[in-house]
Amino acid sequence: MKIAIDAIGSDARPVPDVQGAVDAVREYGVEVLLVGPEALIRRELDKIGNLPDGIHICNATQEIMMGEHPANAVREKKDSSIVVAVQQVKKGNADAFVSMGHTGANLAAAVLHLQRIQGVHRPALGAMFPTPKGPALLIDVGANTDCKPEWLEQFAIMGELYVRAVLGIDRPRVALLANGEEEIKGNQAVQQAHARLQARAAKGGMNFVGNIEGKDVPAHLADVIVADGFVGNIALKTAEGIAKMLNELLRSEIQSNPISMLGGALAMPAFNKVKKILDYTEYGGAPLLGVNGVVIIGHGRSNAVAVKNAIRVAKRAVETNILETIRSGVTAVD
Amino acid sequence: MKIAIDAIGSDARPVPDVQGAVDAVREYGVEVLLVGPEALIRRELDKIGNLPDGIHICNATQEIMMGEHPANAVREKKDSSIVVAVQQVKKGNADAFVSMGHTGANLAAAVLHLQRIQGVHRPALGAMFPTPKGPALLIDVGANTDCKPEWLEQFAIMGELYVRAVLGIDRPRVALLANGEEEIKGNQAVQQAHARLQARAAKGGMNFVGNIEGKDVPAHLADVIVADGFVGNIALKTAEGIAKMLNELLRSEIQSNPISMLGGALAMPAFNKVKKILDYTEYGGAPLLGVNGVVIIGHGRSNAVAVKNAIRVAKRAVETNILETIRSGVTAVD
Repeated sequence: MKIAIDAIGSDARPVPDVQGAVDAVREYGVEVLLVGPEALIRRELDKIGNLPDGIHICNATQEIMMGEHPANAVREKKDSSIVVAVQQVKKGNADAFVSMGHTGANLAAAVLHLQRIQGVHRPALGAMFPTPKGPALLIDVGANTDCKPEWLEQFAIMGELYVRAVLGIDRPRVALLANGEEEIKGNQAVQQAHARLQARAAKGGMNFVGNIEGKDVPAHLADVIVADGFVGNIALKTAEGIAKMLNELLRSEIQSNPISMLGGALAMPAFNKVKKILDYTEYGGAPLLGVNGVVIIGHGRSNAVAVKNAIRVAKRAVETNILETIRSGVTAVD
Repeated sequence: MKIAIDAIGSDARPVPDVQGAVDAVREYGVEVLLVGPEALIRRELDKIGNLPDGIHICNATQEIMMGEHPANAVREKKDSSIVVAVQQVKKGNADAFVSMGHTGANLAAAVLHLQRIQGVHRPALGAMFPTPKGPALLIDVGANTDCKPEWLEQFAIMGELYVRAVLGIDRPRVALLANGEEEIKGNQAVQQAHARLQARAAKGGMNFVGNIEGKDVPAHLADVIVADGFVGNIALKTAEGIAKMLNELLRSEIQSNPISMLGGALAMPAFNKVKKILDYTEYGGAPLLGVNGVVIIGHGRSNAVAVKNAIRVAKRAVETNILETIRSGVTAVD
């Protein structure tokens, strides 16, 4: 199995991207195709040294920067690491694509070049939301706004298929993210999607548990949480922001006097355990579901561990043949 | 000044509601009109004892329960504490209404009986979002879904007027909650609202700072954060859920061994400080803006302190004449 990596994707590129790829080769026995400026990648690989077999380079001279308009950048920068890597998947030179780069550009390149799976209204980005009781897949977290009910229904189906295949949960609980548990809650799209998913559940096909509220996201009341990409993005980012703020606030208050500093030091293992439970790097990346290719998009601020784990996620998605599963699972929806 | 209180609003009714009202009379010198079953209220007041002047009772025999359909309940239960209290405001027997009860029923009763301020498309519920650098008003947090751009524009205007009057911030920073900072981000309604608010800012009328992401909500990058009620509700509840989950997780990890327990005890003042900074009871309640009356809606799980603080918020809104400010501020929008 060969996985294409955007070698200049992360904020601290190329160090975490290349190091994570090398670590993944060592740990998971995959081959990697590092896509980006060849000289830069070679220099980074030389620094690491003692390299295992299975590391390949594919030269790409351009870089899509953060501020750029996704669709325009993808159309114009045909030799960018993102576009070249996606092309490698399309041509069959790689089995999956992993990138910590510009999310919008990754989405645009994947949709433009790999194209949607037949019958899929809109590909969606699913993020593994860490909770103390395990991860939940929040889908969509930003690929689509103003989602129609049938899109939401498909996000539910694709999310269910993904979680079943990749996390091995037999009958994942599927929920809609809403402003209240009752089925009369939600905006129009969510109410209509609710009716659709209820009908699907009644036919015995889906373990649909209804609406859940924002406060229930970290309570792990569902394995798949379906949302419009605008809403899912705001929920995910708000959660990140709150966790970061609490962490910083607690740290600064603890450091404000010697006694609580001592207390903080003694309680450090507990802090670290909490941090580890909620560590996004463990989950490695968000799958883009609904395109003809395995695409895993990670956080810009990923470190080498996150990159390595994203490659693990990609490997698992390839092994479980998630593409074929989605192709056969979504065709019936309209 | 006389403030009507739903005496059976909170989850632990009538204890926090009545106690909070009595405390508010003592501390803020307001009069209160406790609305609910008279015998129940009298019994509660007798338990408290040594009562100050200025405590009145208005009998209401019915109660709107959590599961009920808001609009139906308000139409059918004409002698419910919520409907009777709103009527007291309408008749001029009270200057404001404070309730910890059924949010939907409070909204429905206020809109039905007090009616919208002329020119207001939709009344909106604003919640004070606590951050380490002070509160931000998130508006709307659940009164409206599927908001049109002009509704969002009015939420911005009403929020700005409220924050200026009640928090005393001269030129509040107004932002739209979106899935990215760039103005091309957002769903259709947010993009159009962005253009409207930008035009309003260009005329020198508003300190519009553009889009902010979910992660920036706790960073206090704006004093007024405008959102569709569906989205605002999910952001607010997700934040609550994450804070609760982190708190519980950290607590249980700290208690998992004696050394970290000692550490936790030593660091307790720091924990408590963080808790206080982020304590929703400090902010006391969410103003419903855009109806002909001061209405403050609090959390069902409010304690007496939260009820008292909600009454303080109502008092301040009456004193600063927020109704007249909104009446004159919103008429020009379409």
